[in-house]
Amino acid sequence: MRPVEILKKKRDGLELSRGEIGFLVRGFSSGSIPDSQVSAFLMAVYFRGMTEREMVALTDEMRQSGSILDLSEFPARKVDKHSTGGIGDKTSLIVAPALAAAGLMVPMISGRGLAHTGGTLDKLESIPGFQVRLDPQSFRKSLRATGAAMAGPSDDLVPADRKLYALRDVTATVESHALIASSIMSKKLAEGIDALVLDIKTGSGAFIKEREEAERLARAMVGIGRAFGKKVVALITDMSQPLGEYAGNALEVMECLEVLKGRGPQDVVTLCRELSAYALLAAGVVREAAEGRKVYDDVIRSGEALEKFRAIIRQQRGNADVVDDYGLLPRARFRQAVNSPGKGFVRAIDAEKAGWAVNILGAGRERVDSAVDPAVGMQTHKKTADPVERGEPLCTLHYNDPQRFEAARRLLADCYSLTDHPPSPPALILKVIRGDGNPEGAGAPVT
Amino acid sequence: MRPVEILKKKRDGLELSRGEIGFLVRGFSSGSIPDSQVSAFLMAVYFRGMTEREMVALTDEMRQSGSILDLSEFPARKVDKHSTGGIGDKTSLIVAPALAAAGLMVPMISGRGLAHTGGTLDKLESIPGFQVRLDPQSFRKSLRATGAAMAGPSDDLVPADRKLYALRDVTATVESHALIASSIMSKKLAEGIDALVLDIKTGSGAFIKEREEAERLARAMVGIGRAFGKKVVALITDMSQPLGEYAGNALEVMECLEVLKGRGPQDVVTLCRELSAYALLAAGVVREAAEGRKVYDDVIRSGEALEKFRAIIRQQRGNADVVDDYGLLPRARFRQAVNSPGKGFVRAIDAEKAGWAVNILGAGRERVDSAVDPAVGMQTHKKTADPVERGEPLCTLHYNDPQRFEAARRLLADCYSLTDHPPSPPALILKVIRGDGNPEGAGAPVT
Repeated sequence: MRPVEILKKKRDGLELSRGEIGFLVRGFSSGSIPDSQVSAFLMAVYFRGMTEREMVALTDEMRQSGSILDLSEFPARKVDKHSTGGIGDKTSLIVAPALAAAGLMVPMISGRGLAHTGGTLDKLESIPGFQVRLDPQSFRKSLRATGAAMAGPSDDLVPADRKLYALRDVTATVESHALIASSIMSKKLAEGIDALVLDIKTGSGAFIKEREEAERLARAMVGIGRAFGKKVVALITDMSQPLGEYAGNALEVMECLEVLKGRGPQDVVTLCRELSAYALLAAGVVREAAEGRKVYDDVIRSGEALEKFRAIIRQQRGNADVVDDYGLLPRARFRQAVNSPGKGFVRAIDAEKAGWAVNILGAGRERVDSAVDPAVGMQTHKKTADPVERGEPLCTLHYNDPQRFEAARRLLADCYSLTDHPPSPPALILKVIRGDGNPEGAGAPVT
Repeated sequence: MRPVEILKKKRDGLELSRGEIGFLVRGFSSGSIPDSQVSAFLMAVYFRGMTEREMVALTDEMRQSGSILDLSEFPARKVDKHSTGGIGDKTSLIVAPALAAAGLMVPMISGRGLAHTGGTLDKLESIPGFQVRLDPQSFRKSLRATGAAMAGPSDDLVPADRKLYALRDVTATVESHALIASSIMSKKLAEGIDALVLDIKTGSGAFIKEREEAERLARAMVGIGRAFGKKVVALITDMSQPLGEYAGNALEVMECLEVLKGRGPQDVVTLCRELSAYALLAAGVVREAAEGRKVYDDVIRSGEALEKFRAIIRQQRGNADVVDDYGLLPRARFRQAVNSPGKGFVRAIDAEKAGWAVNILGAGRERVDSAVDPAVGMQTHKKTADPVERGEPLCTLHYNDPQRFEAARRLLADCYSLTDHPPSPPALILKVIRGDGNPEGAGAPVT
């Protein structure tokens, strides 16, 4: 088997065999196939896409490149939630404890944020002392103790995917849906889960702007899951404006605690409730989503979800007192409002621009190795369709560096657009893809 | 400037600036941009193509990566011929001496064959003693002495192109027309020529099977030439069957000597006459092709072209006695005919298959570093539209290794297809593209 012949086949739009994909992934991992050939392959995949069979093969090869968590000693159903990310997306910190409180096991391995705002790990680390680096023993211990573990990937989790991602990052092939789907699924499958709920975001603040594209990605992942005998449910959700009231690591932790206390902004509440309900459905512990919603409502109302999060924080050596005293979270030195230059209704918020503004304040990172400022962020006062008076605050920035504030404010200036007539607020849950219908391996290649 | 941003731009179908292309080529040459990024770029170019402006920029950056021949000390017009190659394609050995005999200067830098049969250098080297490795001083000395030099590239000729080609070879991006056009033109422009005639072959034995594709490539190269102030004329010619009677290095040298003596097969004669005529036209020494044909006829009839070839052989330390005594050329130990299994007319000859058969005999190379057998080859007795009787020889193989003969004969068995009704023989010259019409920089990207 010659790599260049496999490249030609993909370049010409032919389907690769399991053996060919395995040959490429293993050769890349071992170094016997040079980066140059793999890079050309990735770009060919960007243009030609992959069939479901090809994605399943790639996912499996990557999944098997490292150790796979075996959680069979635990009787509970294992479930995880994955989101493609967006501004103010903080649902992991609510959904994980809620599902654990509902009796599921949640082996949640997350990433750090690169663009825009911080990732789940960055948010958790804004809780003083919270450890997200768990060795396999500690991860398992946390699962046993609390039913959930929230950590970063170990070096041995799908190393082939990590190596491939590094190459995608420099070759402009990160955006390939086939590669995204395979990468996410390889990691999730290596966690040893039975079921998965996906939050595929679309809109100005998501990396997938078009809803149709989001649905294709969702179907691809649902299909890959099915091929591995895992039930995957994907929610297509709106990211045309920041989610919730806060964006920024410690600010979001505070908001999550509010939601776990049965308060918090309606959009975050709704999304967490739906994600939890479909996770319970995917795990097979409820028979319909409505039943799942009831379970979620119960663990919130009873305080069990909040207590579960407290236990998780304590188990991962964080200061659990933050649950009752937000003053223990990092706080920015300054805050200043950005006021509306006009009067009307909020027609749209450019969520991506808002994300960059928060990034400029220091909430996200510009490079893999840069540090985040856990305290900074943005509080949104007005969301799409809200009425606004001239001079009324649209949002408030929390910051430590006045120069960064100026830059962020300039970016936010044309982030809000107003209109004279009240628009209808955007729907939050756009579609649920459960993948019961499609036959296995069907469909055109996913690009 | 970040390479990944340039990759994204190309991936998304946007036109790259001169600066961006220069940044990539220079970074690649110096090693500051890794092969992996350049490979992804090449694959993106394969899919997206390049505009004429982009091809001109790439050509110029590669051209300037090494030394450029300055032949301004010579008063004669400098001209070259380039062919995209095919089975039995031997015109360089006739056109170069003919043009030199007509008073032009021909600084011809050629390659070796890789697939199918040998290249120009391989054919020349079948003349005992002939040196194709000329240092710049010897190359210049040959030009001064005979008006023509036929040699391989020096290490300093467009090193960026050589490095890029090596990467294309392993990344399945050799076939990109934009990259082919830029690669060929960078080398030809580095030769210091004023004009160029191109023989773009199409049909089963050419690497470009479709005529439309051949025309696009031709127009791309004519356009690049125009941007550099060079007159380029491209002939689209038929390669649906082997050219001439012989394929194989020494056998082709013999056939070229026949043509230079005013004999030889009609197709070779016609093609050399047309290529020479348009080279003379491109060089501006005749005002129309008919006049150029007359010049060609004159140098053949007078024996000046033959004498010029004799002088070239002598100048490059070959045994010039081969001109009069073909017995001095390498000769295969065995020859055997392949007879027709049926009766009728030759409907088609699979030229590519014929090429592989000759390759199997040892006339071409399987790898860059393998040696060719100068003596072996194929003599074609029947061409398309010729009548043939059952049992009559279709071709004769010249070989040294009976095992290779068997393999080649098996391949040749279904190479000829017969028909009951006489087909019309294929036209040899399909189109002449002179590029007078199109405005500079126009047209869709060339993929």
